[in-house]
Amino acid sequence: MSPRFVTAAPVAATAFGVVAPPDQGTALGDGLLGRWQRRNKERTVPHGLEQLEAVGNLDNLRRAAGLSNAPFRGPVFADSDVYKTLEAVAWELGHDADDALRSFYDETVALLEKAQEEGGYLNSAYQVADGGGAPRRDHATVRERWTDFAFGHELYCAGHLVQAAVAASRSLGDDRLLQVATRFADLIVREFGGADSPVYPGHPEIEYALVELYRLTGRQEYLDTAAAFIDRRGSGWLGDGVFGKAYYQDDAPVRETELMRGHAVRAIYLNSGAADVYLETGDSTLLTALEKQWDDMVSRRSYVTGGTGSRHRDEAFGDAYELPSDRAYAETCAGIAAMHWAWRMYLATGAATYADFFETALYNVVADGLAESGDAFFYSNPLQLRADHLSVQEEAAATRLSWYYCACCPPNLMRTFASLEGYLAGVRGAELQLVQYTRSRIEAEVGGARCVLDVDTDYPADGRVRVTVVEASGGSAPDGDPVGALSLRVPGWCGGVRAVVNGAAVGAEAADGWLRLDAALAAGTVVELDFDLTPRVLVPDERIDAIRGCVAVRRGPVVYCLEQRDNAADVDRATIDPDGQLAETTTRTELGPLLETVGAVREGGTRELYAPRGDERPASERAVLRLRPYATWGNGDPGAMRIWVPVSR
Amino acid sequence: MSPRFVTAAPVAATAFGVVAPPDQGTALGDGLLGRWQRRNKERTVPHGLEQLEAVGNLDNLRRAAGLSNAPFRGPVFADSDVYKTLEAVAWELGHDADDALRSFYDETVALLEKAQEEGGYLNSAYQVADGGGAPRRDHATVRERWTDFAFGHELYCAGHLVQAAVAASRSLGDDRLLQVATRFADLIVREFGGADSPVYPGHPEIEYALVELYRLTGRQEYLDTAAAFIDRRGSGWLGDGVFGKAYYQDDAPVRETELMRGHAVRAIYLNSGAADVYLETGDSTLLTALEKQWDDMVSRRSYVTGGTGSRHRDEAFGDAYELPSDRAYAETCAGIAAMHWAWRMYLATGAATYADFFETALYNVVADGLAESGDAFFYSNPLQLRADHLSVQEEAAATRLSWYYCACCPPNLMRTFASLEGYLAGVRGAELQLVQYTRSRIEAEVGGARCVLDVDTDYPADGRVRVTVVEASGGSAPDGDPVGALSLRVPGWCGGVRAVVNGAAVGAEAADGWLRLDAALAAGTVVELDFDLTPRVLVPDERIDAIRGCVAVRRGPVVYCLEQRDNAADVDRATIDPDGQLAETTTRTELGPLLETVGAVREGGTRELYAPRGDERPASERAVLRLRPYATWGNGDPGAMRIWVPVSR
Repeated sequence: MSPRFVTAAPVAATAFGVVAPPDQGTALGDGLLGRWQRRNKERTVPHGLEQLEAVGNLDNLRRAAGLSNAPFRGPVFADSDVYKTLEAVAWELGHDADDALRSFYDETVALLEKAQEEGGYLNSAYQVADGGGAPRRDHATVRERWTDFAFGHELYCAGHLVQAAVAASRSLGDDRLLQVATRFADLIVREFGGADSPVYPGHPEIEYALVELYRLTGRQEYLDTAAAFIDRRGSGWLGDGVFGKAYYQDDAPVRETELMRGHAVRAIYLNSGAADVYLETGDSTLLTALEKQWDDMVSRRSYVTGGTGSRHRDEAFGDAYELPSDRAYAETCAGIAAMHWAWRMYLATGAATYADFFETALYNVVADGLAESGDAFFYSNPLQLRADHLSVQEEAAATRLSWYYCACCPPNLMRTFASLEGYLAGVRGAELQLVQYTRSRIEAEVGGARCVLDVDTDYPADGRVRVTVVEASGGSAPDGDPVGALSLRVPGWCGGVRAVVNGAAVGAEAADGWLRLDAALAAGTVVELDFDLTPRVLVPDERIDAIRGCVAVRRGPVVYCLEQRDNAADVDRATIDPDGQLAETTTRTELGPLLETVGAVREGGTRELYAPRGDERPASERAVLRLRPYATWGNGDPGAMRIWVPVSR
Repeated sequence: MSPRFVTAAPVAATAFGVVAPPDQGTALGDGLLGRWQRRNKERTVPHGLEQLEAVGNLDNLRRAAGLSNAPFRGPVFADSDVYKTLEAVAWELGHDADDALRSFYDETVALLEKAQEEGGYLNSAYQVADGGGAPRRDHATVRERWTDFAFGHELYCAGHLVQAAVAASRSLGDDRLLQVATRFADLIVREFGGADSPVYPGHPEIEYALVELYRLTGRQEYLDTAAAFIDRRGSGWLGDGVFGKAYYQDDAPVRETELMRGHAVRAIYLNSGAADVYLETGDSTLLTALEKQWDDMVSRRSYVTGGTGSRHRDEAFGDAYELPSDRAYAETCAGIAAMHWAWRMYLATGAATYADFFETALYNVVADGLAESGDAFFYSNPLQLRADHLSVQEEAAATRLSWYYCACCPPNLMRTFASLEGYLAGVRGAELQLVQYTRSRIEAEVGGARCVLDVDTDYPADGRVRVTVVEASGGSAPDGDPVGALSLRVPGWCGGVRAVVNGAAVGAEAADGWLRLDAALAAGTVVELDFDLTPRVLVPDERIDAIRGCVAVRRGPVVYCLEQRDNAADVDRATIDPDGQLAETTTRTELGPLLETVGAVREGGTRELYAPRGDERPASERAVLRLRPYATWGNGDPGAMRIWVPVSR
């Protein structure tokens, strides 16, 4: 099988479901996502390159290449930070030339070529004799190769190498890194691809990397090995480890559970890989299980921000409805992982609901991971911090930090922002589906026709979206209709949308989240949408104990929060009138205006922490409350923050 | 200085504040605490002896003694489980002879004598060449002596050895173990007692052990070394470790913080040691700091059960008011530690409020740690478990387990139950203070007079307490009054108490938690108390986000919960009418009757996990709810449990 297409999307397409546009013509314009991508290239990636040098990741590889005597620094998976950054650099260089990024790319590829062993092995933590630094709780302490699959992260790192190589090949047409990656992948296939191998990785990641490598190279053994890693999981072979089998989803086979459990990033990377295997094999037993697990995640174990992971101890999903705001783990990487999984579920099914979740995660938990300045990061993204929370521990920092010992999130953000244009649209037969709205140029082949669309919008700050079909030429739809359909996603949060096509209002009845305009893929078609962004008050399912009696505010896909810097009222003691008007102020952020409403500050309290009923001294004072988009908090003086606000008595 | 007294109390008395009765005459009768003590001897301790054999603790010591070739098993602090059990056995043998316990005691003391090195060193994890098993997250991975003070637990283990030895000497008059302990203590004083040593332990414990050793032996260097460990702490010398300096209270000196933070057991053991140093030195700067930290704990960072520790990741106190029910850590050992600290604060100040907290911890979080059967244990004592919580992870088990890899709690319960009679009374000048009520005989020297009291009560199941002064002879009070005062604690939860002295009702106005009866310490005095045990509905401070909109029920000092096995209604969805009557049923437990009230079960819900306001579908069905004492839950079929119940709409 030969490569089927080249795309800027981090995942490519499939014989089943929806096809990602197989073209490099799609690009972000000067909308929110385009600005984020530019900040990524100008600020975040350069900052990351400095950090990789400063904290030792590159020295580790130089040591493995025989070019340095520096001791190994960082966790056992330190190489993966380099790979994720390389992937980001490859996507960014595909957008525009850049000397500094190009130098990093060329030097690092050459370094990896040199560090790789004859047989294909490449992992500096295991190649460097003195191994890693002081062992940390859930990181490998053994430095013998292929002995610690539960925590050793060798296959995890290899997966990130493969993804970087796929990106470089697709984005730059440069296959030097691909040669490194395939040498290692071939070693992995030889060692662990056989039917008699029990092996699978403690931290999933390589599964979808191998599927992408299969897509690029057409070599079946990569797909088969990815499928084998999925199929073997749940045998218990990884052992109990420190946190038990469920921690790494080894308590049950993927197909035999409906529950999301254990380490959130591992769980969601695994399911992204399983979805990719489905996309290439059509094995519906996988899809069925994934749909049930998805439902478990969104209906019982996820935050309003799109975050997942309720527990710090093992970075894990909690019990159903165990969703604390203050101790939300909601790791940035888990948000990114959810975007990956959501995208693949959308590709597999064409269902808009997955794109809704993708959007929620992107504009809330993932965006929150990065400072406005582009060079500071949250690892965990709680929904509440109290004024007295002063921790500088990286897993519960009170403010964004410039880098992390466990630096998985920063380069994960980099590769995500670098490739956002890959998630804007899908093609389903003779139908082009517009999935995410941002200022962009979208190019796709639809039913054999080359289509170019121009999307003009300040979404999500503004609900107006103007889509122009610039070009639609050649080919014809399989069903014989010469003009394909254009479907526009109507987000689930949207109470109403007005649609105008070529100047005429149309009945904007969305079916299953799509506004389908038949025969609209003709040059000159102009579609104007106006999504209702009236701020809405949200209530939680009453089974979520942690936020009982609270409400939150959402405007479009953007979740709002109270932050102390915007408020004279004590945020820790603020309450909100859910019937109060939510007025848009003139203070704007990139995600929407600040909102103003009325509430109160509780002044009273109980005599003791727990007091006999009747002993309360309720007292409160009316206060004006200002809310801001959650993802924009923490960019000023540190202070209290909360998304869920108690309802005023 | 010579030994000042012998007492069954695990901590002895002082020149400051209150004196613990210096006599062995105090004994528990057939009341609740006496029954718990009997169960401890008959069931829990024998079970513990089996486990210490089965999981390797004794083999570790045999290996160190050259009597075995078994590999080391268990965590680096495995020896401490043996010492805590030895302490329990010593207290129990002081009550009654027992062949099996005596054999264990004699054999283990002989084993320790043999395992101890010439220079005094004794710790099997470090004496056995192959060190511990696989390293676990917060346990030492280094097995070189005196190199890992942060996590190595050598001083911690030594502290437990000393406490066992003090118990054996006081309770049995046998000083063989004391000789082992003083040899090790002398080594510690030599190595770390000097003014130039920066050393202190990552896990406090040895501080109060050394003060007790000082009390027993009169050797000043033990007190000085304990004080030095307290004084040096906060220099940052332990380093950041995995969890940061606050984890082991090394972020600030004891005297310079008002906050309880970090690992709860470490924090409270530390403060118990600091209180003991105060009790012997009268250093009021220590007491001032401890009073502020106590206030922080009880008014901002403790559970209604007396539990502490809001976080699983680092077993730590949380931010102020961060008190989740479901993820409450509330380690059994932290409850026991709080009893230790409360007792010492009471001794230091004579304030009844500390005894109130002691009582709350004893009858709730600590009692919860042990199964009715006496041979299964909770490590963590959450205030809520949902039906879907099926974890067998020992830190969040859905049901009590028969033993633990980290088995600190079971033998801690054993030594606690074995020595409960030590906490019943205090002597303050010519005043005898009755602190805890249980069927017992209390003997004390008060103002030179030997006093014997008989206490007859089924407290806390029953509020009636009858105190008879059986004997009060010899001596006279320092103020010349020949007859001392008898003070009776009136618990803070108590709305009212009726008191009858020698048949005549007295005005039962308690001042600062004490009902003081002057000149009552005369033979023949009979005091009848009747505490109001009417069940009360408790409300939490509104700053505790995790239980907003919920109430709990307390009867006397006993906190109640809903458990699924008592209820047809779904406990996960139950709500309670806080105005409903709380009727006592005829179903009784050792801590009080089951209660019945009205509530409802929520049947409705939101369409989505987070839904626009107005989209709720409230529906509920009236239900009868049955509540049981929290500490008695989990002794039947597993199921949901919760202390804080949402208020019905």
